[in-house]
Amino acid sequence: MSEKVIVALDAMGGDNAPVEIVKGAVEAVKEEAGLLVKLVGREEQVRAELAKYTYPQGQIEVVDAPDVIETGEQPVMAIRRKKDSSMVRALTMVKEKKADAFVSAGSSGAILVGGQVIVGRIRGVERPPMAPLIPTAKGVSILVDSGANVDSRPSFLVQWAKMGSIYMENIMGIKNPKVAIVNVGLEEEKGNQLVKETYPLLKACKDINFIGSIEARNIPNGDADVIVCDAFVGNVILKLYEGTAKMLLSKVKTTLMSSLKTKIGALLIKNSLSDTMKSFDAKQYGGAPLIGLNGLVVKTHGNAKAMEVKNSLLQCVKFQREKVNEKIIASISAEKLDEAEA
Amino acid sequence: MSEKVIVALDAMGGDNAPVEIVKGAVEAVKEEAGLLVKLVGREEQVRAELAKYTYPQGQIEVVDAPDVIETGEQPVMAIRRKKDSSMVRALTMVKEKKADAFVSAGSSGAILVGGQVIVGRIRGVERPPMAPLIPTAKGVSILVDSGANVDSRPSFLVQWAKMGSIYMENIMGIKNPKVAIVNVGLEEEKGNQLVKETYPLLKACKDINFIGSIEARNIPNGDADVIVCDAFVGNVILKLYEGTAKMLLSKVKTTLMSSLKTKIGALLIKNSLSDTMKSFDAKQYGGAPLIGLNGLVVKTHGNAKAMEVKNSLLQCVKFQREKVNEKIIASISAEKLDEAEA
Repeated sequence: MSEKVIVALDAMGGDNAPVEIVKGAVEAVKEEAGLLVKLVGREEQVRAELAKYTYPQGQIEVVDAPDVIETGEQPVMAIRRKKDSSMVRALTMVKEKKADAFVSAGSSGAILVGGQVIVGRIRGVERPPMAPLIPTAKGVSILVDSGANVDSRPSFLVQWAKMGSIYMENIMGIKNPKVAIVNVGLEEEKGNQLVKETYPLLKACKDINFIGSIEARNIPNGDADVIVCDAFVGNVILKLYEGTAKMLLSKVKTTLMSSLKTKIGALLIKNSLSDTMKSFDAKQYGGAPLIGLNGLVVKTHGNAKAMEVKNSLLQCVKFQREKVNEKIIASISAEKLDEAEA
Repeated sequence: MSEKVIVALDAMGGDNAPVEIVKGAVEAVKEEAGLLVKLVGREEQVRAELAKYTYPQGQIEVVDAPDVIETGEQPVMAIRRKKDSSMVRALTMVKEKKADAFVSAGSSGAILVGGQVIVGRIRGVERPPMAPLIPTAKGVSILVDSGANVDSRPSFLVQWAKMGSIYMENIMGIKNPKVAIVNVGLEEEKGNQLVKETYPLLKACKDINFIGSIEARNIPNGDADVIVCDAFVGNVILKLYEGTAKMLLSKVKTTLMSSLKTKIGALLIKNSLSDTMKSFDAKQYGGAPLIGLNGLVVKTHGNAKAMEVKNSLLQCVKFQREKVNEKIIASISAEKLDEAEA
């Protein structure tokens, strides 16, 4: 692998910038020799952080960007006006092929808008979806769309099913991934208008392994690898999943601290329980990719720490090496040919 | 309280009928002297079950219904054709004011259709919602609609907010319950078309305590008492909530059984953990009411055991005593007056 994968990393985005972002970059290049990180942000601040570490010098560069897009800003305005922000500069690097991918813990709205407006869609992709990985009892599933496109059309969901399948097959190594559409029951006649119209299109789709509807209660079991839904529903799933897990685990913790007896019990189970919970942490897979763009854009949690930043950078390397975008382009072109024949 | 609350109970509905259903009825009348249960089902079978128990004789009657609606049947057809089924007979009793309420663990679809077609809507109620209670860190919230009406209109959601508020105030004793609409962000401009159109209507609504949007991640915290959404989204929330809790607790259990050390730890925390989990069990509040009908219809889980059946019967007593339907009628009439004035 002679050519390095170049990732433009938003050094100023998120609650823990630039400290954890820079740390994540250092950890990533130490682990992956084929990665070049371009840290985009306020040069002085970024260099001061970088000075704390030793790392392979050729693998991190700093690109100055004096401005920052804050979380509360109106996304379209921010992207349009803040030309000198870390986000706009980094996204422009992807557009100009000076970087293969962009990673940010900054404003979701600005990342979504910037990804589409600056980097641009792959020709033929109707709407790029936000596609995070969610942990399940069996491993991990991809949830498309979880935040980019509410009020979607059936044709969007069909493309998301294809792109999600390509992602799971190439990045997660799942052969012939099972695709399901989120529904309120398993029968084919169930669902809202969108699901009823999308179901037969997915069923007719030759290049995916469509297994039908999935009820939300079976998502945590890992019954499907690619879970397709409108972004409103996907966002509800993603956030409720996180919120329920957090609340339950905090209830368990409170119980464990409630008496001397339970405290002793807690000591005995602590390590095993913590291992179990780690296996249930989506951060190990990196951030949420926005797929279908001329490049890769990855959104990490706003409160991302070095570990999540590192994993997001490694995720970009894999995405590039496995030529996921080329496979998406091929799949979308095949679709156009099918339509032309029909 | 001289007059008894009469509940028609579907003795044949659900996975554990008639055994657990009859048992639940017996337990309920032992606890509540003001309750009369009419067990509707195959008389011989029901009487055989009843014979196992001693209970206040005047509080349980058996009504013969030789037919049963199975879970897999097409709901509209089943309700139309199976006149002698336990469900149709029991619902007809509510319609004819021979019972105040109906409880069933049978087919959700048939209960929804039967409730609307046989019992009928309160005049002015556009669409009766299914409104289960969901446990939260703070207690319990009502989720309207969780399964009756997908592809809803804004005016439906406004009525659900009102009915949900009346329910929480009168049945759960929560003064001035907080109402929120499920959304993908907190800002007023966020959301899909339905939410964007509904938000200002809820904001303008005088007789509810609308607090704005709620993100799904905050539902488990109990940040709102009345959670309003389209039934597609509500069903996803309800089922994912159950599925996530089940999966996580099973992960915790597996961990506890993984070694001798953790097994000893498990013994020490067992009782406390089990108490915590019980407080998190929605079954203690009964089943999911279908509200806005000329009577009350309550759907319990298909796998409901005696405890859930009992609590659903007690829920009907409270619903009747607190005159919830009269309050709903008053609220809907006030709405009509407002419209007439406007």
